[in-house]
Amino acid sequence: MDHQSPAFTEAQVIARLREAFASTDPRIEVGIGDDAAVVVGEKLQVMTTDMAVEGVHFRTDWSTGFEIGRKVTAANAADILAMGAVADYLLVAVALTPSQKIDWIDDLARGIKFEADLAGLQVIGGDISSSEKLVISMTAVGHCKEAVTRDGAKAGDGIYLSSLTGWSAAGLTLLQSHASPNGETHSIALREYKSPTIDYGFDSSKATAMCDISDSIVEQSAQIAKASQVALNFDKELFSRSEEFADLQSLADELQVDVWDWIFGGGEDHVLLATGVDLPGLKIGEVTAGEGVFGIPLSVANKAWRHFR
Amino acid sequence: MDHQSPAFTEAQVIARLREAFASTDPRIEVGIGDDAAVVVGEKLQVMTTDMAVEGVHFRTDWSTGFEIGRKVTAANAADILAMGAVADYLLVAVALTPSQKIDWIDDLARGIKFEADLAGLQVIGGDISSSEKLVISMTAVGHCKEAVTRDGAKAGDGIYLSSLTGWSAAGLTLLQSHASPNGETHSIALREYKSPTIDYGFDSSKATAMCDISDSIVEQSAQIAKASQVALNFDKELFSRSEEFADLQSLADELQVDVWDWIFGGGEDHVLLATGVDLPGLKIGEVTAGEGVFGIPLSVANKAWRHFR
Repeated sequence: MDHQSPAFTEAQVIARLREAFASTDPRIEVGIGDDAAVVVGEKLQVMTTDMAVEGVHFRTDWSTGFEIGRKVTAANAADILAMGAVADYLLVAVALTPSQKIDWIDDLARGIKFEADLAGLQVIGGDISSSEKLVISMTAVGHCKEAVTRDGAKAGDGIYLSSLTGWSAAGLTLLQSHASPNGETHSIALREYKSPTIDYGFDSSKATAMCDISDSIVEQSAQIAKASQVALNFDKELFSRSEEFADLQSLADELQVDVWDWIFGGGEDHVLLATGVDLPGLKIGEVTAGEGVFGIPLSVANKAWRHFR
Repeated sequence: MDHQSPAFTEAQVIARLREAFASTDPRIEVGIGDDAAVVVGEKLQVMTTDMAVEGVHFRTDWSTGFEIGRKVTAANAADILAMGAVADYLLVAVALTPSQKIDWIDDLARGIKFEADLAGLQVIGGDISSSEKLVISMTAVGHCKEAVTRDGAKAGDGIYLSSLTGWSAAGLTLLQSHASPNGETHSIALREYKSPTIDYGFDSSKATAMCDISDSIVEQSAQIAKASQVALNFDKELFSRSEEFADLQSLADELQVDVWDWIFGGGEDHVLLATGVDLPGLKIGEVTAGEGVFGIPLSVANKAWRHFR
């Protein structure tokens, strides 16, 4: 089948990536370059995959290769964290477009490596193909003693966020508004949209249920409520105690957006949402007997798009 | 960002896939539906990823969803086999186009399940996103006691194929020729292009080096020769002793193609190429001291495209 070829060979790209992802981790018996990687496994493993498509999940005119590499790696790493697990290995499949330059690919690889290092992930393998739109698909593997699933929330638990949600959505709104970036709050929002800060240090050892906010609190809390057969009750007042809240609120005012749309309806922050007693992070509500999710403004709940992306 | 939404929700698709891939395998503690799957691991694991893009690796007007699902699963399973490993788990990320019907997705899932069952792979997780072109990316995980890599070929070894290569390339030529399918040989070629038969039963326990033919013998044998620092010497006469050879030759004559272009230059058969002494399969040559690959017709070697796909 016909398709334009990029200006470099697969072998060249693989050689670059092999170098970019070189690791001295003794658990890696065979790394990039054979049919498959060979690694030392663990008794109980956690595995997740996450795909990002140009124009749907990122835009190359908004984000650099470095930022895109970080973002997709972060989304995968957050899923490992959200199971209460330790990150081990990462596989990266990329479909490149004919317009991609080798420098851009290097930049992408540096972004993947940067975030993988933060997460503790070793890049052990991958695949490169071609496409009209850039596609990046990753699989992350981790391990745990006991997984924190979505079904363990109990009446009496508090609800916690590892940090305030909404910044990624705020960054997207800023980019869509074509406003000139201006000041610290703008740059935080843009940064969090382009490469969200993952709370790698969040101590989830006492969490009874957990997930990361890839879609929105609206959707993810409904999943926990359903799986755990409890009611999740949010308290807006508690959110506003976050140190970050005032800045997010002022940005929302500036852009004439309801800040709760960002906080409850925004996704891709990959903040951790956890239930339990005396957890670290920002307490945002209580788990009670019952069924469903309460305390989310109706205007937000009705809007929160099921974005299928 | 704007993109058209398909006529069903992600939740609907996930519910279908959860059902399609339901497993009673006791090693799966958490399957599809949480942030990540939780499975029992092994001491030494083999991990591989392979991405397929519509218009580059498959066409939906040529192949059904079932065939495409089988083909991508087969490509991943073959990489596990090619390490001398046993297949365990599969993760599937799919970007669907707005035109995809739910029936087509069911068909794709059935194809993935069919091939995964042949391979011994359990589908434990995935991701669904949207895109203008269909993209399917999978990661397969297996285990082994000792991996068969590309660097173990020794002078004195024979070179073996688990079965004859070239059928997938023949099927592609047939489709491109717009010839009406006619008779058994045509249907074998078309079938092998659409969903190649993987030699799951190939006994590689005595193999010194191995890989699967995803690109071509030209390229894959060069990789083994380079990694093992030996010479690979092919003998065309030996290939022609395959029971399948006469049929492939007659199809090549009919389509006015050099059959050696298909055999040495064709990819995506995912046949296993192995070195060793007294291996099963089709013996096609000898490993000697030296460097490089010999016995491939120059006309083929010069053509064999580095297809970057």
